[in-house]
Amino acid sequence: MTLTLQQLNETSYSDALQSLEGLFEHSPWVMDRALSKRPFASLAQLKYVLATVVSTASSDEQLSLIRAHPELAGKAMVAKTLTSESTNEQNQAGLTQCTADEFNKIQKLNADYNAKFGWPFILAVRGPRGTGLSKAQIISTFERRLGYPADYELGECLRQIHRIAEIRLQDKFEQMPSLGIEVWDWHEQLAQFSDPVFKEAGQLTVTYLTEAHRACAALLMQQMQACGFDEVKIDAVGNVVGVYKSTDPDAKTLLTGSHYDTVLNGGKYDGRLGIYVPMMCVRELQKKALRLPFHLEVVGFAEEEGQRYKATFLGSGALTGDFNPAWLDQVDAEGISMRQAMRDAGLPATLEAIKGVQRDAKNYLAFVEVHIEQGPVLNELNLPLGVVTSINGSVRYLCKVQGMGSHAGTTPMNRRKDAAVATAEMILAIEHRAIKDADSVGTVGQLHVPSGSINVIPDACLFSIDLRAPVDTQRDAMEADIVSQLNAIAQKRGVSLKIDRILAVPAAPSDLKWQARWEDAIKGLGIPVHRMTSGAGHDAMKLHDLMPQAMLFVRGENAGISHNALESTTAHDMDLAVAAFQCMLKSLV
Amino acid sequence: MTLTLQQLNETSYSDALQSLEGLFEHSPWVMDRALSKRPFASLAQLKYVLATVVSTASSDEQLSLIRAHPELAGKAMVAKTLTSESTNEQNQAGLTQCTADEFNKIQKLNADYNAKFGWPFILAVRGPRGTGLSKAQIISTFERRLGYPADYELGECLRQIHRIAEIRLQDKFEQMPSLGIEVWDWHEQLAQFSDPVFKEAGQLTVTYLTEAHRACAALLMQQMQACGFDEVKIDAVGNVVGVYKSTDPDAKTLLTGSHYDTVLNGGKYDGRLGIYVPMMCVRELQKKALRLPFHLEVVGFAEEEGQRYKATFLGSGALTGDFNPAWLDQVDAEGISMRQAMRDAGLPATLEAIKGVQRDAKNYLAFVEVHIEQGPVLNELNLPLGVVTSINGSVRYLCKVQGMGSHAGTTPMNRRKDAAVATAEMILAIEHRAIKDADSVGTVGQLHVPSGSINVIPDACLFSIDLRAPVDTQRDAMEADIVSQLNAIAQKRGVSLKIDRILAVPAAPSDLKWQARWEDAIKGLGIPVHRMTSGAGHDAMKLHDLMPQAMLFVRGENAGISHNALESTTAHDMDLAVAAFQCMLKSLV
Repeated sequence: MTLTLQQLNETSYSDALQSLEGLFEHSPWVMDRALSKRPFASLAQLKYVLATVVSTASSDEQLSLIRAHPELAGKAMVAKTLTSESTNEQNQAGLTQCTADEFNKIQKLNADYNAKFGWPFILAVRGPRGTGLSKAQIISTFERRLGYPADYELGECLRQIHRIAEIRLQDKFEQMPSLGIEVWDWHEQLAQFSDPVFKEAGQLTVTYLTEAHRACAALLMQQMQACGFDEVKIDAVGNVVGVYKSTDPDAKTLLTGSHYDTVLNGGKYDGRLGIYVPMMCVRELQKKALRLPFHLEVVGFAEEEGQRYKATFLGSGALTGDFNPAWLDQVDAEGISMRQAMRDAGLPATLEAIKGVQRDAKNYLAFVEVHIEQGPVLNELNLPLGVVTSINGSVRYLCKVQGMGSHAGTTPMNRRKDAAVATAEMILAIEHRAIKDADSVGTVGQLHVPSGSINVIPDACLFSIDLRAPVDTQRDAMEADIVSQLNAIAQKRGVSLKIDRILAVPAAPSDLKWQARWEDAIKGLGIPVHRMTSGAGHDAMKLHDLMPQAMLFVRGENAGISHNALESTTAHDMDLAVAAFQCMLKSLV
Repeated sequence: MTLTLQQLNETSYSDALQSLEGLFEHSPWVMDRALSKRPFASLAQLKYVLATVVSTASSDEQLSLIRAHPELAGKAMVAKTLTSESTNEQNQAGLTQCTADEFNKIQKLNADYNAKFGWPFILAVRGPRGTGLSKAQIISTFERRLGYPADYELGECLRQIHRIAEIRLQDKFEQMPSLGIEVWDWHEQLAQFSDPVFKEAGQLTVTYLTEAHRACAALLMQQMQACGFDEVKIDAVGNVVGVYKSTDPDAKTLLTGSHYDTVLNGGKYDGRLGIYVPMMCVRELQKKALRLPFHLEVVGFAEEEGQRYKATFLGSGALTGDFNPAWLDQVDAEGISMRQAMRDAGLPATLEAIKGVQRDAKNYLAFVEVHIEQGPVLNELNLPLGVVTSINGSVRYLCKVQGMGSHAGTTPMNRRKDAAVATAEMILAIEHRAIKDADSVGTVGQLHVPSGSINVIPDACLFSIDLRAPVDTQRDAMEADIVSQLNAIAQKRGVSLKIDRILAVPAAPSDLKWQARWEDAIKGLGIPVHRMTSGAGHDAMKLHDLMPQAMLFVRGENAGISHNALESTTAHDMDLAVAAFQCMLKSLV
């Protein structure tokens, strides 16, 4: 019998407990504490409460919750008969149909894992779509997580337990995230296209105007048409533009979208989620023959990552009139100019045509963008969605500390000009200053003593700095403090410091009214509102120059890893993103 | 007219000043303050007083002293006629016979130097032997010093001013460092032999039992014979052993010496100075037909650096019975075993013969060793000689910090496991702990974030640790503190730390009685006694296992750089080292 939220909220405590049988069955305290919070406004809220019960439990309770879980490896079995014909099918069949090699590998991983962490490996084997991971995916996840620090892996086990509970709740309530699953599948379809060398390696890479890129554009057009957009076209820079018209031809337009190109060996969701979520909303409106009091324009931006040409944000930039004419003559690694690439793609490749892409702000309400977070915050907070307050401004430096090399044994500590120690002090100063702001970040990603010897005091040390903050004045203040502190450290230690500022991008704070609309949409889903800055740049940063903008973030799995094949979110979270977009649209009617 | 120290001490102040005309002529305050310290016990003491006057002067006085100096580049002139025949001769002729290219280079260097430092480039062009640097040497010194930090280069200019004064004093007092110059020339003769590839590149490399190494041994034997040693031989491991006998055949023996092999592209003085200084003492004794009440045994150790075979201290180790039989089977880069190399050199290559090299402690008084400092201390303190209190014990580690890589923009500061920041904190902890001891040293010489990206938080960081201290208990305490601090930092920051201890060598404190003899010898020369530890390992460290030992350090130029072609000391300092050794011998009579 299907459970409903109303039943769960209104029934007696013991019946409620009974109805949730099979969830946290070895650790009844979880359900016990969660049910004390009834009534729940939504399934999403119940899930969040369950997660909060666990995350606020004591370490001992968390550990015993994990340890109560059966060994995943205990389910591994060697298949009785294995023919080469049946192998492919069995790859989908979980751990009960292993080859002897796979079985041994799993047993070894399991032993190493238990020895390192002291608890069993936990994985929601139904995976992010809810329909099952392959043996290969299970084994590679096992291998990867074996390398994690213990405290992080403990958190990951708890998150996997939540994911298992989420799927069991879906079954009990028969609330399939069906729009989310469709959006998931659209991503899979689009991910079939990848630039040749990468495709062969099983990697996803779609760079500007390659064959794969044009195939993506063609598929997006098709999909938009199937969704019921009234106008669908590819513009002069390769953006795929779909318009779902209002009944009022003079109405303004709400602009949304994100990019469909990728970095080299990137993820399937970075950018594309922001095209597909509003497309699904149009599909649902059209299904019900509903029209909005404004036009809804969804753009799949052709170029955001700057991988084939150094022309980052070309797609969204073209809408703001920010197209650098010199780009047309820029050549890619194979010597093909952008002009030629455009012509090969059937685009006019003239500045006049590109100029025509520019939008007139007075026709637009705003730009809103959905994007996968690309960071660990929502995943760690057990929140499926978050609201962006600002896209951080950033500045980058390449630095060199020059000291004096000398013998590590014969040079007293007080007579050294050690480039590495000076750099170490600088790195801590950068961290210390960035922490002070709460929402600024500072990173030294490159660090290197050239030709370092164990018994020689480093004469030089090279490093990079990346500073970001949600507001330019905040970034500028941090930058000024850090540059002055670094110089002071150099002077104090008698070393010289060369710093080259190689990049500076201004911040793009969200429009407060549109940000509030996202917040209301999230509240409407029964989920707590989490406000956060975007550390990475997005197309909204370009549109910011032209109109109000605000972004919605969707949780990423695996600590929010992005620009990586491991980038992932779940069908459930995609479903909530569609629901949030729908709420937001509804609030404008 | 030749000036004497007695005259300088006894004459009136104005006559004394007059007699030193031409020294510090543009900065009379230097001589004025120095003469207030009359009487001087030795020329070495006068020089030290002059240096101290300058080093204790105000920054303004130091700068004006430097700025009063004429531009070296002002002396550069293009030769009127330059034929290919005369070029070689002109290379020795200072800066007045430059080619147009050389002239332009010097003018450019001069402009860059003045722009960087704001004072003229100062160099004692008569060089460390006192007989003149070549144009090529002057230009390369100019280029090198242009790269130094300003405060170091200021000190170097002051040291060059002292060197100019030292040479002028030598001329005025007609006190040529004649024994020092002969010792200097012996080093030049020995440096003619270098392993083939290095010789072609103009570099000095003499590794165990190569042709160049055997030529060195043959020359050392010849030179010892010419000095009047009574017995000279090459022993079973290739050590060159000379004995200057006492009249009493039953007398004990004072052992001294150092090594004649070098590192790859090493200096001319590392090791060899400790063979030549006592050889010169024997030459002088023999000249005057003087005998000592003990035998004096001088050993040129064949192997100390461990370059061809991993058998560091093989030469001195053989005297203590510390020869690892497995070494005989070790092969060099070309596959030649040590056994074969020994046979090729005409050595017996049997363990029995090698065993025969071992000395019986009861026949020996002690081991004393003269060595170039290989560090910056004496050079900085304007002291030609120093006394070693202990050869430091050392310990080495290779370390890896493993954190978690993630996006530099999207990962808040409080959610990072940044391997580079953790390492930075560790580096400062190492420095802080080493400084606490005053005479311990701690160095991170290798430092590297593998495949670091400017916008990615480092997931891993590799580094090395080298710790040294004059006493084992001190080293052990420092090591324990550092290891525990590093682990605490790793734990605090949620990263893992892997540390591998790859080397540990015990300390060798000097015998106090023999150390005192070196101190008395230095005092006898009118020079202040400076006690210091040896940060580098030496042959005395091996002999320490068998008998009392104590070392004398000789100042190195160029911040004491060693294991480098720039390693240098002056003929004056070598002369003082011979004098100190003679004083020490005299004290035993």
